[in-house]
Amino acid sequence: MIARIYTNLKRDVSDPQGLAVKNALETLSFKGINKVHVGKYFVIELDSMKKSEAEKLMKAICEKLLSNPVIEDYTFTIENGNVSKKK
Amino acid sequence: MIARIYTNLKRDVSDPQGLAVKNALETLSFKGINKVHVGKYFVIELDSMKKSEAEKLMKAICEKLLSNPVIEDYTFTIENGNVSKKK
Repeated sequence: MIARIYTNLKRDVSDPQGLAVKNALETLSFKGINKVHVGKYFVIELDSMKKSEAEKLMKAICEKLLSNPVIEDYTFTIENGNVSKKK
Repeated sequence: MIARIYTNLKRDVSDPQGLAVKNALETLSFKGINKVHVGKYFVIELDSMKKSEAEKLMKAICEKLLSNPVIEDYTFTIENGNVSKKK
């Protein structure tokens, strides 16, 4: 089973890394970019288990280790099967 | 328009950050984790434009700035509308 977790700073929290990326894109003459938010992306390969169990596990992992709930939001998806080549 | 970009190390490239997260999860007594890959997640707010244009722009941005094509893979999705609260 594969879980994909996405963490991102909350909307009200200042995101200097996103600002730096936006400025870099402007310097490279890319047009049409309004805002950039930078977060983290985790792909976790799990032993096979019930989906409800996996969801509980991911929630605990996100709250204990992978995100800082004070300043970050997280979302995750869980799917069966192996990691595809591309992601 | 919102573009979401996910970058990840290629499968054959050593991922010490992923290993560190896996070890931390084991230390915290989480069971059933086989492997962890750590990547980056960008949310980009775009001016409205044709989807094909946005795709071209994202491809260029990924290749020039946001990922290192030698060691990283990227994927992106593009959707209309504004950033939702959660992501």
